Amino acid sequence: MSTPSPSARPALLFDLDGTLVDSVYQHVLSWREALESEGIELAVWRIHRRIGMSGGLFLKALERELGHDLGSGAAERLGAAHAKGVLARMNQIRPLPGAKELLATLTSMGVKWAIATSGAEKTARPTLSMLSIPPDTPVITRDQVAYAKPNPDLFLAASERLGVLPGDCFVVGDSIWDMLAARRAGAMGIGLLSGGYGKEELQETGPYRVYDDPADLLAHLDELGIRDAR
Amino acid sequence: MSTPSPSARPALLFDLDGTLVDSVYQHVLSWREALESEGIELAVWRIHRRIGMSGGLFLKALERELGHDLGSGAAERLGAAHAKGVLARMNQIRPLPGAKELLATLTSMGVKWAIATSGAEKTARPTLSMLSIPPDTPVITRDQVAYAKPNPDLFLAASERLGVLPGDCFVVGDSIWDMLAARRAGAMGIGLLSGGYGKEELQETGPYRVYDDPADLLAHLDELGIRDAR
Repeated sequence: MSTPSPSARPALLFDLDGTLVDSVYQHVLSWREALESEGIELAVWRIHRRIGMSGGLFLKALERELGHDLGSGAAERLGAAHAKGVLARMNQIRPLPGAKELLATLTSMGVKWAIATSGAEKTARPTLSMLSIPPDTPVITRDQVAYAKPNPDLFLAASERLGVLPGDCFVVGDSIWDMLAARRAGAMGIGLLSGGYGKEELQETGPYRVYDDPADLLAHLDELGIRDAR
Repeated sequence: MSTPSPSARPALLFDLDGTLVDSVYQHVLSWREALESEGIELAVWRIHRRIGMSGGLFLKALERELGHDLGSGAAERLGAAHAKGVLARMNQIRPLPGAKELLATLTSMGVKWAIATSGAEKTARPTLSMLSIPPDTPVITRDQVAYAKPNPDLFLAASERLGVLPGDCFVVGDSIWDMLAARRAGAMGIGLLSGGYGKEELQETGPYRVYDDPADLLAHLDELGIRDAR
């Protein structure tokens, strides 16, 4: 457990899909397609509620619901089919309103920030390039940690990369998995509705605040106690 | 206002997209594509929350958010582009779990039911054909009434077609627009989570019950007071 320090400069750790980039629905439909290619019928809304959690846990939950194991090789094939679907839909994906402006504002204010995503390097890179972020932006992807969300590993690695204690970080995310991982990391969660979760669903996981999207968060940075110290 | 009668045989009025057919996310992405073709950038989650309401009201809300009128012909072009997008995605659309079984069970129990959708005939027909329903099933589409949801017109027309008072009907839908239209029709709303709304969002509109999907509703028909009188 990290001990919060009396700091005027909290850092922000951002989830990527649904938080900075409007890509959740494309991820959801790519999963549907991938699952069907393995003979698994799963309704789209149920997939939506699992987006952002570790792929391994998603498959474990799926096996529980199906009542049998998926068999060897299925996880790799599903992952590859999902990535293929996302890359095919990449031309439909846009940055969320205010995302670029929010990140640029934080940078110009001297506030530290990083990106931590349950997504794989392969699908995260093309969406990161839409955000016009500096090439030295700290980015933690699924490939770099042992466990993805709701484990705290991604956010702990991101805070360490920034040299800021987790207790001095806000975790900004659109899914309940981000909010749960934030709590386990000892950070404060900030929920965004831009991934399609209902407000009350996010609020049940105990975030510090819930905003519509990055533009709404940018307009309310003062509520986080983030000051322009220039 | 209809006066409920002491009836052991309530009727069911079903919404289509997100209620019987797993098509909401395809509708959402088709709207995004259509809006962008008119130069309008709107985040996907905001479109999701408008799905199922009247297209005219959707555009009016959009004009309010954009701060200007869309201009003449835009509504027709948007409608056509959206329909084209849905038809192009039709091969990804599936019946929701339990939908066919639920409708077949109601028919075999002698319970009256109908379908009432804010969708246009053009996009509704191909999805209806996935449900294996009798050709004489009463179906009310957008084209047949003056105002779509959340106005009560669609459900009032459906109950009239069945010869059942609205107060003796359950309206089954996945969106808050269904639940609002149900209340205005004087019918009881049954919410389904299969369209991707959060449970609490649906519950706030005052439905009688909320279930996961058609399969879950089928397993709990007794809770609606629907008895097999064969």
